[in-house]
Amino acid sequence: MAESARPQRRMRLRDVADEVGVSAKTVSNAYRAPGQLTPELRQRILATAARLGYAGPDPVAAGLRRGRVGAIGVLYANQLSYAFDDPNTNALLAGVTAAAETAGVGLLLLPGSVDPVRRATAVTGAVVDGIIASSLAEDDPLLQTVVDRRLPLVVVDQPGPSVLATLTPDAVPWIGIDDRAAAFELAEHLVLLGHRRLGVVSFALRLGTPTGFATLSDQDSATLSVTKNRLAGYRDAAARHGIDWGSVPVSQGVDSTPSEGRRGALAVLGTRPRPTALICLSDRLAEGALAAAAHLGLRVPEDLAVVGFDDAPHLAERLDLTTVRQPSRLKGHHAAEALLALTRGAAADPVPHLETTLVVRGTTGPPPSDR
Amino acid sequence: MAESARPQRRMRLRDVADEVGVSAKTVSNAYRAPGQLTPELRQRILATAARLGYAGPDPVAAGLRRGRVGAIGVLYANQLSYAFDDPNTNALLAGVTAAAETAGVGLLLLPGSVDPVRRATAVTGAVVDGIIASSLAEDDPLLQTVVDRRLPLVVVDQPGPSVLATLTPDAVPWIGIDDRAAAFELAEHLVLLGHRRLGVVSFALRLGTPTGFATLSDQDSATLSVTKNRLAGYRDAAARHGIDWGSVPVSQGVDSTPSEGRRGALAVLGTRPRPTALICLSDRLAEGALAAAAHLGLRVPEDLAVVGFDDAPHLAERLDLTTVRQPSRLKGHHAAEALLALTRGAAADPVPHLETTLVVRGTTGPPPSDR
Repeated sequence: MAESARPQRRMRLRDVADEVGVSAKTVSNAYRAPGQLTPELRQRILATAARLGYAGPDPVAAGLRRGRVGAIGVLYANQLSYAFDDPNTNALLAGVTAAAETAGVGLLLLPGSVDPVRRATAVTGAVVDGIIASSLAEDDPLLQTVVDRRLPLVVVDQPGPSVLATLTPDAVPWIGIDDRAAAFELAEHLVLLGHRRLGVVSFALRLGTPTGFATLSDQDSATLSVTKNRLAGYRDAAARHGIDWGSVPVSQGVDSTPSEGRRGALAVLGTRPRPTALICLSDRLAEGALAAAAHLGLRVPEDLAVVGFDDAPHLAERLDLTTVRQPSRLKGHHAAEALLALTRGAAADPVPHLETTLVVRGTTGPPPSDR
Repeated sequence: MAESARPQRRMRLRDVADEVGVSAKTVSNAYRAPGQLTPELRQRILATAARLGYAGPDPVAAGLRRGRVGAIGVLYANQLSYAFDDPNTNALLAGVTAAAETAGVGLLLLPGSVDPVRRATAVTGAVVDGIIASSLAEDDPLLQTVVDRRLPLVVVDQPGPSVLATLTPDAVPWIGIDDRAAAFELAEHLVLLGHRRLGVVSFALRLGTPTGFATLSDQDSATLSVTKNRLAGYRDAAARHGIDWGSVPVSQGVDSTPSEGRRGALAVLGTRPRPTALICLSDRLAEGALAAAAHLGLRVPEDLAVVGFDDAPHLAERLDLTTVRQPSRLKGHHAAEALLALTRGAAADPVPHLETTLVVRGTTGPPPSDR
């Protein structure tokens, strides 16, 4: 089958030109500038091409000539296959895709890998006109690899603009939300309900750290800026209301999955005095935390309040989860629009912080002592 | 910003070689064959490249030279952005991605379009080593465009192997399920519960047809083979149990969305005598049909039984929907594995029909008269 799927010798434009008895340029025009030929000649050329098995001008060669290949790359910190399982990332990709598709541009999902050399090779070898990098740690060496390609670049979520500015003098458009302010609002909602004993279920603060409780110093030195900013926002709310953040258990997980949320919640709920409110850094972590609460026989919200982050499509509503809505699809849309502008040689319109909204649902209420 | 994002003159390998005082080949080796240089020389070349702003060897040129670009294309019949909203297609893409990623290969999602020329251009211009085409109609001209590229090709779901054989003498690997047998099993489940008055909520039977009721002749001449095969399976079950299929209303929609399911279900439930069982061609259509039943004040399953197709991740379980489970993620995995084999010049292992399973949940029970 392999033999028949690829002809032994690939037919070239020259072969078609010789067979028809015209110049190579004329054959090229039959594909690229049909108006230059009579319909009869064009038809004769295309029919000959079909008979010889000529597949048309090579898009790789054409891309090299034009300096454009009609695709933008999306680079994602985790494994790509995980992105498809995560409703929030899925929404981001949907937004990127919709905008790219409207422009007739394809989307190259760059393969991730745990092996740093393979990850870097995927970036250096990507045949694309520009790259959207999403959620890289500040100290991820891949970041410099992306910058070094000197392709149009847009960054989503992290790292933030200040870190990007240290990597390249180019102005790199950044698309994201004000994670710190959104997190503040969410934590204050719990405090205003009367909660004083908080616990946090987080995803990673930096690349490659093991799971466990994160100290204040761990939090201050986090290099995943989304994690760092959200923790800072929760801490701001605690400080405003006189809660000692140093006594708040912050469990760190490796990623944003329900199983990590369950593990982290069990760790936090094992501390004494037991927290009355669990702040989860994502809805998927909250999904696992709710499972942990059920496992321990804790009623939500009567015995334990739980909040997430994202308002992930389908998920948060199904869980009846109090959370912060962030417009992931819109993020993707803006990122693609900005990148498409850059690939056309135009300036990207600056995008301010996208809006977030506190969404109060059934997983939050007053703590047990206030009932 | 646009000016600074792209340097005015792109630095070339030659510039770096001149600056260091070595040959172009030596600079090339610094990137491609580091073992050929002393570490000191290599470091000097890379540092000079960084200082000059040389971005490394052009992956497009390298791709042209090697005849490989490290990406496979996925061509999907509908708009791509719709694929991200559809949990079943999402699972398919997750499967493709996981297999491609393991091989260090990227995934180019080809932009769809309602404009046929733009759709074709996306295929002829795609910079990829092979293509997975998913769910194209038998009479979609894009199919010939894909075949004409003479790239390694794998087809998922539709068109079936017999149609592919008419387009090219090459053996094109096909990955799919036995839609007809699975549909038969699902419809027979309803008939064995006692249902005699069936109604069908379908997606499109062919490209570009308006919504409305599909006649037997419409069904026989369908060019979307998945639709055709599922309808044939339901019809087989009716025939075996003496139900006149000609009296079964089959509402045709344009796509597989809850809103189309709702519209189709309302049309079918408006026929008299009112069906006691709705067969939906997908879980997403069933989601809309359940909304239509609620709107009409019909209890499910007491007044109306509803079945879907796919056992779409998260969705079917949440709806407590009786359906057929098809392994969409596994489809994607097999498709990518087969294509990766072809791009390596190996033969693709033949893949038999993937297994399906009837999953009985709470939306089916005996008809009202039997209770």
